[in-house]
Amino acid sequence: MAPKYLTGDKAGIDAFVDQFDVFLFDCDGVLWSGEHKFPGTAETIDMLRSKGKQLVFVTNNSTKSRADYKKKFDGMGISASEDEVFGSSYSAAIYISRILKLQAPKNKVYILGETGMEQELDSEGVPHIGGTDPALRRDVQPEDFERIAKGEDLDENVAVVLTGLDYHMNYLKTALGQAYLRRGAKFLATNIDSTLPSAGSLFPGAGSMSAPLVKASGQEPLALGKPSQAMMDAIEGKFKFDRKKACMVGDRLNTDIQFGIEGGLGGTLCVLTGVSKKEEFLAEGASVVPTAYVDKLGDLLG
Amino acid sequence: MAPKYLTGDKAGIDAFVDQFDVFLFDCDGVLWSGEHKFPGTAETIDMLRSKGKQLVFVTNNSTKSRADYKKKFDGMGISASEDEVFGSSYSAAIYISRILKLQAPKNKVYILGETGMEQELDSEGVPHIGGTDPALRRDVQPEDFERIAKGEDLDENVAVVLTGLDYHMNYLKTALGQAYLRRGAKFLATNIDSTLPSAGSLFPGAGSMSAPLVKASGQEPLALGKPSQAMMDAIEGKFKFDRKKACMVGDRLNTDIQFGIEGGLGGTLCVLTGVSKKEEFLAEGASVVPTAYVDKLGDLLG
Repeated sequence: MAPKYLTGDKAGIDAFVDQFDVFLFDCDGVLWSGEHKFPGTAETIDMLRSKGKQLVFVTNNSTKSRADYKKKFDGMGISASEDEVFGSSYSAAIYISRILKLQAPKNKVYILGETGMEQELDSEGVPHIGGTDPALRRDVQPEDFERIAKGEDLDENVAVVLTGLDYHMNYLKTALGQAYLRRGAKFLATNIDSTLPSAGSLFPGAGSMSAPLVKASGQEPLALGKPSQAMMDAIEGKFKFDRKKACMVGDRLNTDIQFGIEGGLGGTLCVLTGVSKKEEFLAEGASVVPTAYVDKLGDLLG
Repeated sequence: MAPKYLTGDKAGIDAFVDQFDVFLFDCDGVLWSGEHKFPGTAETIDMLRSKGKQLVFVTNNSTKSRADYKKKFDGMGISASEDEVFGSSYSAAIYISRILKLQAPKNKVYILGETGMEQELDSEGVPHIGGTDPALRRDVQPEDFERIAKGEDLDENVAVVLTGLDYHMNYLKTALGQAYLRRGAKFLATNIDSTLPSAGSLFPGAGSMSAPLVKASGQEPLALGKPSQAMMDAIEGKFKFDRKKACMVGDRLNTDIQFGIEGGLGGTLCVLTGVSKKEEFLAEGASVVPTAYVDKLGDLLG
C-alpha cells in the first residue's frame, strides 16, 4: 500500500496518531541531527505525552549510555526519562549478560568503541577491556605484531569482541580484535549502520568501523541494534506493549522502518530529515515502505 | 588437473623450472614473513638467476616503494634490483598518471596509506594529500564534523581517493575519504588483501583498512594490485615476456594463484608458508588450483 503523506493533513495526522498507544522513536535524524534540533521536536513530544502515549527512544548510537542520552535530551530541551531510552549498547549488554550468560572468569568483553558501551556493560556487571583504554590509543609498533602473534598482549579470558562506533579506531585495536576472533571469541556489534548522520551530512557509522574486522576475519557480527529483532524483543520485554498498537518513527528505511515492519508493529512513520529520501519508498517495487511519512517530525503538530 | 607436489622430487623440480623463462614472485608469505626470512630463499633466487631466469618481485604491499623494497631485499641478503620490484603502489601510480591522465589542477589524490604510496605517486609526478600528513594523525573533534560537512577542510582539486595499507588509519582520515567520494572522486585501491601475514600470524590487510570506506560509501574500489589484471598488463608492458613461459609463485590462492591463472601464464606454483593451506586446492571442486606446490620456496633447491 502506498504510504500516506501526513504533512499539512490535520485530519490524517489525528487519525494516524489515535491508532497507537506507543511510539518508538529513532533519535539521530528524527529528533535532531548531531547538535542541531529540528524545529517542533520538543513540542511534538509534549503533544504525544499530553495524549497519554508511551514513548520509547530507540537509538543505535552506541557511544552514549542511557544516562548520557538523558543529558542530551535535557540539553536539547526535549522531555525524556532515562528509563525511556533504549540504546544499542544497552541492548548488547543485556544480550551478553542475560542470553550468553558467560561463566567467569572467561566472560570478558573486548570493546571496540566508546564509553557508552563500557557504562552499559558495567550496569550489567560484565567485565571488559579495550574500549577507551588510553594504552591502546597509540600507533602500532613493529613489536606489537610479534607480541600479538604470540598471544602476549591478549587476555585469555576474552570471550566476546563487541564493536560499536569508535571515534578512536586504529590499527592496533583492530589487530587485537582480529586476534581474539581467531582464538574463537564471539563477534557481536551494537549495530551495523553504515553511516552516521551529523551536521547535515553523512559520516562513517558503527558498521563502517567494524568493517575492517569483518573483512579481516571473514565473519559477520551478530548485530544487537536496529533492525535486529533481538533489540525489539528486548524492548517489548522491558516495556510490555501490544505491538499492533505501536508505531516506529525513523529516518532510515533499512534500519528503522524495516525494524518496525519485521517486528510486526501496527505502523511505521518515516521522517525526511535524515538518511532516506521519499523517492526510495515511493519507487515502483520499493522493498521497504512505511505506513506514512512527514517532511519532519514537527509536522505532526498539524 | 591435480597440482603436482614438488617437495623432494628432484626430477619433477628440474622439469618444472625448465618450462619457464620468467618467474613472478609474491614476497610476503613466499620469501619471508614480516622480518623472518624462510630457509633457502636467497639460495633459490640465486639458483634461478644462475639458470638465466628473469625474476620479477610482485608485491601487494603498498607501504613500501620500490626503493624501500630494494633495501628490504638487501637487508635480508636476497639479491634483487629496484627495477625487478613491481609493487601495488607503483601499479596504482602508473594507472593514475598514464591511464586516468587527469588534468591539473583537478588531479590530486587523497591517500589513505603510508609513505610508499606517496613516493610512487611522486615518481609519476602525481600531486597528493593525506597519507602521512601529521596534521591528520589526531582524534576527530566535534568541529571536524561541521567543517567536513560544509566542505571547509576539503581540497576541491581532489579527483581520486586511493586506499592502501594504513597503519595510521583513524576516524578523521576515513571521514575525509568518505567526503571526497561523496563529491564524486574516483575510488581506487592499491590492493584489497583482507589480511597481512606477519610474525607467523594474520593481521588486518589493505582490504580491511579500506573496508570502512567501502561500507560507508557503498562503493567498491578499483583494485590495482593482485589479482587485478591491470597489474599484470602493466608488468607485461614493462618487462615484455611470453606469458606462456612465465610462472607465478605465491602463497595465496585468491590473489597470487588466481592472478597467474587469469593472466594466462604458463604455470603457477603455490608455497605453503603463507595464507593458503593445501587442503583448499586439493579439495574436490576447488575453484583456484595451482599447477604445482611445495612446502616452502627453498624446496626448489631439491
